[in-house]
Amino acid sequence: MAIVIIRQDGKIPLWQRALKKVAPQVPVYSYLEPHPKEEITMALVWKHPKGQLMDYPNLKCIACSGAGVDFIFQDENRPKELPITRVVDTMLAQDMSEHVVAVIFSYLKHLGHYRIAQTRKIWRPMQYHRIKDFKVGILGLGVLGSVLAKDLVRFGFRVQGWSNSKKSLGHVKSFAGQEQLYQFLQTTEILVCLLPLTDNTTGILNAALFKQLPRGAYLINVARGGHVIDADLIEYLDNDHLSGACLDVFHEEPLPADHPFWEHDRIHMTPHYASVSDTESVVPQILENFRRLQMGEPLLNVVSKERGY
Amino acid sequence: MAIVIIRQDGKIPLWQRALKKVAPQVPVYSYLEPHPKEEITMALVWKHPKGQLMDYPNLKCIACSGAGVDFIFQDENRPKELPITRVVDTMLAQDMSEHVVAVIFSYLKHLGHYRIAQTRKIWRPMQYHRIKDFKVGILGLGVLGSVLAKDLVRFGFRVQGWSNSKKSLGHVKSFAGQEQLYQFLQTTEILVCLLPLTDNTTGILNAALFKQLPRGAYLINVARGGHVIDADLIEYLDNDHLSGACLDVFHEEPLPADHPFWEHDRIHMTPHYASVSDTESVVPQILENFRRLQMGEPLLNVVSKERGY
Repeated sequence: MAIVIIRQDGKIPLWQRALKKVAPQVPVYSYLEPHPKEEITMALVWKHPKGQLMDYPNLKCIACSGAGVDFIFQDENRPKELPITRVVDTMLAQDMSEHVVAVIFSYLKHLGHYRIAQTRKIWRPMQYHRIKDFKVGILGLGVLGSVLAKDLVRFGFRVQGWSNSKKSLGHVKSFAGQEQLYQFLQTTEILVCLLPLTDNTTGILNAALFKQLPRGAYLINVARGGHVIDADLIEYLDNDHLSGACLDVFHEEPLPADHPFWEHDRIHMTPHYASVSDTESVVPQILENFRRLQMGEPLLNVVSKERGY
Repeated sequence: MAIVIIRQDGKIPLWQRALKKVAPQVPVYSYLEPHPKEEITMALVWKHPKGQLMDYPNLKCIACSGAGVDFIFQDENRPKELPITRVVDTMLAQDMSEHVVAVIFSYLKHLGHYRIAQTRKIWRPMQYHRIKDFKVGILGLGVLGSVLAKDLVRFGFRVQGWSNSKKSLGHVKSFAGQEQLYQFLQTTEILVCLLPLTDNTTGILNAALFKQLPRGAYLINVARGGHVIDADLIEYLDNDHLSGACLDVFHEEPLPADHPFWEHDRIHMTPHYASVSDTESVVPQILENFRRLQMGEPLLNVVSKERGY
């Protein structure tokens, strides 16, 4: 019974250290080094090379080290019968919330515009907005969306949310299902996308959706690049229907140098860093699932293969 | 008994309309047009041309249409015996607070850096900070500082403040007087200047003060340009003692094109627009003082000539 870490971002040693620190007795291997493949029962993955999971004959669980598991479903060449788990990280949710709050405030006060104007030596005051001026609508009221909604309410924002099923969150108006999506959009002035990426939500941020938002609406996407139809977003920024967008995620990351987002004045980019799973806060639940796997107990935070999240 | 408006920013018609709307019977003149100078009893001023106030033989009150009155004291050629009033605008205080909150969040999440990196097509994630990471210290706990302190506490920040006299604000540690200034600075990681500009505070943001701040501290000045020794600020940014600064106010505004702040990577400039007195919210207290002047009643919000604010 052992764990293998499979990821391509150079962070394997970081995760190995974090796991060893809490559970020195658990064997943890890097997939880049020689390791006994038949001993591996749990693969701890983040954007692993496709097909790699087929290498382990005794694998029992695919453990995602982040919250979004879409990259696992995109790997057609994986052992499909195995359970997939994700992490539910309250620190991650809090970080995400702080990031979105920062983006909203920066938009209200034109801080990004002023930073650009400064490089051009332009002194041009613009009428600022206030917390009370806009209604924030959150697409997706899961773990991340709920924390954000509560924070925004505490900060004095008017907040509403849309999700698959109706939610009950204090002071947050809840819309649910396809039939209430347009109603939700028509009263949303700052739209935050926190949806999981599934077959149903791929490309959801498209012209038909943008058209439903009131003129001058602002888009914040901190979910996945796959939610956005890039050409539609540019069209709706250029025709002045949307006043701007702040994007943390992209179809390809890093964003290719020839992509038009880089030079668009109304797009504020951040390099997929709104919220990063903190190894220390996440390691205990991964080790708890490893223990449960050994004991044959039910796993925590198992992903629904039907819903895709 | 009449009011003259003296300001050079093109906003005289705006203020005339706002006054006329509430009190159509009160004569209100622009100093740029012919007007009966001996009838004028109140001058409503904002950065008036020096010496201009000597033109009115029956003037009884110099009414500042903003919160900061330093420009009046800088006019040596004014009727010095007259009372000076300022406005206390809760909307102004709220706007100021939202602006500073926006700047702090933008700093925590490196949004300004990312906006610049984007123009250079640089994809480089930087470890973000959290609300809990820094203690915010507010220089000046007057009307503006108190509102900001309360908002920051509500948002989860650790907050302390420094002022002339000890203040009692829930969850805000209060330091007072020259003897506690260094103690306050040594535990302040984000310093917000909201002091009035007086003889005592001119140039207070200087090398000696910066040296007391912990390494990596961040400066936000939303008070007056005269608080800062510009060369000292640049020195302490360049020697890495300060991690950055966000400035809304400058010695000369607009900032001259050859000033080094424009091109400094660690300075984020905004064009003196953190908070703008809203004519509608301020006009009633100006008219109330005009009425009191007519009736010989004590004026509201009179500035102390000794303190200078």
